[in-house]
Amino acid sequence: MEYLKHVSNRLGLEEDPELRIPVHRKTTLPVTLWYNHEEEKLILLDQNKLPFEVKTRTIVDWREGVEAIKTMVVRGSQAIGVAGAYTLLVGASQAKNNSDPVGQCHKIAQEIARARPTAAPLAWATLLSYNYSKKVYDETGSVEQFMNALQRISDFILAQDMALNYYMRTYGQKLVRNGDVIMTHCNGGSLSSTLMGHALGVIEEAYSNGVDVKVVSKETRPRSQGYRLTVWELKRVGVPTTIVTDNMVSISFERLGVNKAILGADRVARDGSVANKIGSADIARLFKYFKAPFYYATSYSTISLEVKKGGDIEIEERSIDEVTYPYSLIAKDMKRRGLVSEKALEEWPPSNSIVTHEPERGQVRIFNPAFDVTPPNFITAIITDIGVIKPKAVRKLTGRRMLNMVRKRIIDFGLEFPEGLTSLTV
Amino acid sequence: MEYLKHVSNRLGLEEDPELRIPVHRKTTLPVTLWYNHEEEKLILLDQNKLPFEVKTRTIVDWREGVEAIKTMVVRGSQAIGVAGAYTLLVGASQAKNNSDPVGQCHKIAQEIARARPTAAPLAWATLLSYNYSKKVYDETGSVEQFMNALQRISDFILAQDMALNYYMRTYGQKLVRNGDVIMTHCNGGSLSSTLMGHALGVIEEAYSNGVDVKVVSKETRPRSQGYRLTVWELKRVGVPTTIVTDNMVSISFERLGVNKAILGADRVARDGSVANKIGSADIARLFKYFKAPFYYATSYSTISLEVKKGGDIEIEERSIDEVTYPYSLIAKDMKRRGLVSEKALEEWPPSNSIVTHEPERGQVRIFNPAFDVTPPNFITAIITDIGVIKPKAVRKLTGRRMLNMVRKRIIDFGLEFPEGLTSLTV
Repeated sequence: MEYLKHVSNRLGLEEDPELRIPVHRKTTLPVTLWYNHEEEKLILLDQNKLPFEVKTRTIVDWREGVEAIKTMVVRGSQAIGVAGAYTLLVGASQAKNNSDPVGQCHKIAQEIARARPTAAPLAWATLLSYNYSKKVYDETGSVEQFMNALQRISDFILAQDMALNYYMRTYGQKLVRNGDVIMTHCNGGSLSSTLMGHALGVIEEAYSNGVDVKVVSKETRPRSQGYRLTVWELKRVGVPTTIVTDNMVSISFERLGVNKAILGADRVARDGSVANKIGSADIARLFKYFKAPFYYATSYSTISLEVKKGGDIEIEERSIDEVTYPYSLIAKDMKRRGLVSEKALEEWPPSNSIVTHEPERGQVRIFNPAFDVTPPNFITAIITDIGVIKPKAVRKLTGRRMLNMVRKRIIDFGLEFPEGLTSLTV
Repeated sequence: MEYLKHVSNRLGLEEDPELRIPVHRKTTLPVTLWYNHEEEKLILLDQNKLPFEVKTRTIVDWREGVEAIKTMVVRGSQAIGVAGAYTLLVGASQAKNNSDPVGQCHKIAQEIARARPTAAPLAWATLLSYNYSKKVYDETGSVEQFMNALQRISDFILAQDMALNYYMRTYGQKLVRNGDVIMTHCNGGSLSSTLMGHALGVIEEAYSNGVDVKVVSKETRPRSQGYRLTVWELKRVGVPTTIVTDNMVSISFERLGVNKAILGADRVARDGSVANKIGSADIARLFKYFKAPFYYATSYSTISLEVKKGGDIEIEERSIDEVTYPYSLIAKDMKRRGLVSEKALEEWPPSNSIVTHEPERGQVRIFNPAFDVTPPNFITAIITDIGVIKPKAVRKLTGRRMLNMVRKRIIDFGLEFPEGLTSLTV
């Protein structure tokens, strides 16, 4: 079936002639990636230019695709997965006249899968795509059939993701009421998915259906995804939004009428703990004080049943440049404006005093963990594409049950499974 | 008595030839302001240049003094008070050959007192200084005696403030233990006082006396006083310091071993509530979860017995430019580096969509309250210059009792009250 046409009709997408990708008619939100089959091009919304400029990037070389994944032109683990599958398709187009196109694609798939080692769906989607098509090739011996299979499976991976986002935001609807003022953090939204996924997907769906809802978006230092991306997409949809810095949770209850939180999530452990952007655990604890519901919204694919408890999740530390960057700009700006002399420092703290381990006398450590873990007792429920789940109920799930639920939703959405695809596992 | 000489000896200060103000020998911390009587100059550490440059500003015209107070070259309500008294002294030096120097000083005092309407000690110190000297003039009819009185009382105001800071950090010592990892927020420290006051004064005193203590300093968006000022002064003293962004409280317990918090405070209400820099209330609530002690450190002069409860404290909203400033620099930097095109926005959110009230469709509110209020049940104790006080015990204080306790400490420190000064109230 024509997957891209089907989701376009089903979701109400229409091509934006300037961006060259479809936008969602009702909200004007663009999809974050799309494939132009006629021209054999992958088109990515360039999220590194947001919010200052809305541009797409056209990928005609798989190496550029890998680079775009590495540099976060595309974000959010499921969207990255889809980008991985399509990057392989771009690579196949380049390799199809080689002596061994299938072997070449195998190598390309492996390189793509390694581009972001912590994003599990990247390897999943890329390898599912390759393995499915390789099987077709083994059965037919036809490179053309191999290419067709790659097209089919990549489109299916995009389409099923959009379908699952649709279910996630549909399930989330019943938790959003007229008059709600919802706090969110980082960007768990359309920009972290293929279209309207996660926390903001729920809110954007409600708002565009006439529910009177407002959002309070936390800045989310150090990378400021809340300030830059969440505000960008909410403003595009029209949702009235208030920006607060990351230290304004209590006062948001007292002065802004916040009554609920919905955040995206990076990973769910078997005990119902959730790892998400640094700061999420602080918000969850504060919400408990104010007796307000605190939700995560995330795909079933982030539920990692093999991770027994939150404490088992490894916490990555990111570059300290993310933290220091604004201060180097401020130092230069002050110098330019003559507020300090030409001899003044252009960085703070001075780099010779910075450490990333336990500091000693005179040293300054900059601590930049990417996320934190919220214990299950601070989470009201987890909104997923297979339903709204209480954190304590996560342990009752099995991989097979989840996949059956996913399969049912994909079919209900009107998508056919590609011939020969029996499972979503690699 | 020679007040400045006395405090220099008592605290171990020595002139820094380059800065032209004394530094504390043991910690190398500079005082934040000083008066050069020979040259009739007020000298301020220019905090607007910190942390990029350590410079002083010399004030020889009272109007410059007012300007410096308004533009926060000097910060912290008590230090501003001292600066106000000395600015009046500068004004008196300028006016002494006028036809009516005392009348002129009266006008100057009123202008100074109005420079920062919310800093109560500014009006207190300036008017105490004027009234005391005016009384001397009324008794003697001598302009020279008036000038001498102004000198005496200004020096006394500086000296008593340094003495009270000494007691504050001495009382705080018993709450600091070997191995402590203390979280702080904003800058309640030497830079917000005349020398080594507030939260950091306690920590710096302990560290320089050999107590093994580390600090975790929160960035404190939007003005980043934690990142810029707290780290500057702790680094100068040598205290091992870790910078975290404002959304890292929970993880600081889990990964950095934080076990205590000490913050400065702007105002204490009769019910034991404390108003302080935005974010303080979030930290206090989170500390309750982790069952860790949470202290404020502040002068008796911030205890406002006439303010019945925390909810009565008015919360000032500050300019939204504080919030947006780094993003305008980032936008320009991205343009300069070619990461976005010449047509890209140079501000975010676009100014035509920003509001400072409840947002409507498509609008973005930027909310920038200066402080929040911590209810008494989240505060372990308040460290003051008249002792460590449980929040519930604040209501037992009276203005007279506090002033008696202050008088006793000033005298214990070896300072004589200027002849004829019977009370610290204006």
